[in-house]
Amino acid sequence: MAWGAIATWRMAHDGVVEAMRLLENKANAGDAVEALIKTVEDYPYYKSVGFGGLPNAEGILEMDAAFMNGDTFEIGAVAGITDVKNPISVARKLSKDKFNSFRVGEGATKYSMLEGFERKSMLTERAHKIWEKRLKEIQENNLNPYDGHDTVGAITLDQMGTMTAGTSSSGLFMKKPGRVGDSPLSGSGFYVDSEIGGAAATGLGEDLMKGCLSYEIVRLMGEGLKPQAACDQAVYEFHDKLTARYGKAGAFSLIAMNKEGEWGVATNVEFTFSVGNDHEEPQIFIANMGAEHTTIIEPITQDWLDAYEKRIKAPIV
Amino acid sequence: MAWGAIATWRMAHDGVVEAMRLLENKANAGDAVEALIKTVEDYPYYKSVGFGGLPNAEGILEMDAAFMNGDTFEIGAVAGITDVKNPISVARKLSKDKFNSFRVGEGATKYSMLEGFERKSMLTERAHKIWEKRLKEIQENNLNPYDGHDTVGAITLDQMGTMTAGTSSSGLFMKKPGRVGDSPLSGSGFYVDSEIGGAAATGLGEDLMKGCLSYEIVRLMGEGLKPQAACDQAVYEFHDKLTARYGKAGAFSLIAMNKEGEWGVATNVEFTFSVGNDHEEPQIFIANMGAEHTTIIEPITQDWLDAYEKRIKAPIV
Repeated sequence: MAWGAIATWRMAHDGVVEAMRLLENKANAGDAVEALIKTVEDYPYYKSVGFGGLPNAEGILEMDAAFMNGDTFEIGAVAGITDVKNPISVARKLSKDKFNSFRVGEGATKYSMLEGFERKSMLTERAHKIWEKRLKEIQENNLNPYDGHDTVGAITLDQMGTMTAGTSSSGLFMKKPGRVGDSPLSGSGFYVDSEIGGAAATGLGEDLMKGCLSYEIVRLMGEGLKPQAACDQAVYEFHDKLTARYGKAGAFSLIAMNKEGEWGVATNVEFTFSVGNDHEEPQIFIANMGAEHTTIIEPITQDWLDAYEKRIKAPIV
Repeated sequence: MAWGAIATWRMAHDGVVEAMRLLENKANAGDAVEALIKTVEDYPYYKSVGFGGLPNAEGILEMDAAFMNGDTFEIGAVAGITDVKNPISVARKLSKDKFNSFRVGEGATKYSMLEGFERKSMLTERAHKIWEKRLKEIQENNLNPYDGHDTVGAITLDQMGTMTAGTSSSGLFMKKPGRVGDSPLSGSGFYVDSEIGGAAATGLGEDLMKGCLSYEIVRLMGEGLKPQAACDQAVYEFHDKLTARYGKAGAFSLIAMNKEGEWGVATNVEFTFSVGNDHEEPQIFIANMGAEHTTIIEPITQDWLDAYEKRIKAPIV
């Protein structure tokens, strides 16, 4: 049987490597996607997910996450949760509940405490410094406060044929308290059906939820399209439609994998991702929108990776 | 131009009548859907929406609502909001924001206060009594606490050809704090595209979000299906799929209207709704699942209406 994992952004690569190790050893897709996303949540230099994530306009780090099982359609999700080490694990646990499986705000945090999930102050000194600096820049230069919304979204396929989807995000930098993006929303942030495939999104959640692109990509794969064709069709048609009807399409990028482990991506901005399957080692790629509803995908260069490493660890001055 | 309004449950009828009056006088679809839903939110005897809605497991009334403009795809949504008279109006206002347009929990309530929306204690003495009684029954008889989740969902079409969708709900009775259903979730609780039509849902939110049925119905109408055919196909195929894959499908009911003002519904439980358009007076119907993926729709009887009226106003003993 085929198996594989795909996830958004270069930051997900170590998680993809870990998920692939588990999948090769016959782990189930749920364990693999949870391990993948925990790896991203735990790393302090990724400022849009979990520990080290950037706080909202009031300086509080609020996080969103979701988990979906493609065999059963079970979904668990949290939004605006605080002080919990791994939001993805809370979402996965919630997916086992028939009722109350999407919890927000204080109710979500309370649930994670009652269920014994590890509490952790998720705001790092570095993230707080970035927040303070940005607040000053906004005040001094009358800037649009909102930028940065790099969700980790992932799809895994195990050797038993089960597929799962997972997402985790600290959301839009400088968001208003309680703002929720697409990450915890079924159909927009993620969707998976083990008999077809799965898809996940990253980008401006406010615009992603206007299109239900994760659902649409899975549906198109169900009609027989390969993942790349499904991503190209869904993403660029919606990009054009939103531009025409709303005036402007925010940045968004989608990933997909089908039940054969084949994959695809589409994006309207420069977008990195990591992917591997039973015949391709995990690798980082960079994607850009091409002409006529196509996507240009190239292996990442060492120069790009070096510049990235330097950027995420640069001193905050 | 055609115009019309459709909404879930008998409780929405007075709102549909009001929306139709506005639409006949050339009001825009957004004003009509907001007026429709406010009528339901304001009526104290509807125990699943707005004032008089039933509280969560901790006795707090938390509400969800959403608004979508089918011309621009603008969406505004709130979840777990408290003490605000008309959640639908807060959602509609949020739909004008490019960022932070979906707010949950305290952040949502805070937004409504800062924007000057009318504050109101939404828990009635009657709702509190029902809650106390139910709590006792659950403890004494070891019952499943969850029943009742009758969202008002509505689609309106105005004489300029604009369509909008709106939803409002106090969610699952006895829900855990911060639980969110499908009502504020694009694609699951609602979806609308003025060039095609709109759809909205009511039922067990946890299961509705597994299927993205509102998006799917609009998509099918976009492929040329009439609203009734689109509802039948989307709802019953998903009912069967969920039963096979998850073990059981919760109750759900969907309504749809296209840009010609034609309408349809599909449901896996007994379901009432109200609808009118430029050549049909607003009327209440009752729908049930028929054989072979069809829906049986009949005008409501006076007996049914009398029994309903008696039931919603019966003394709580």
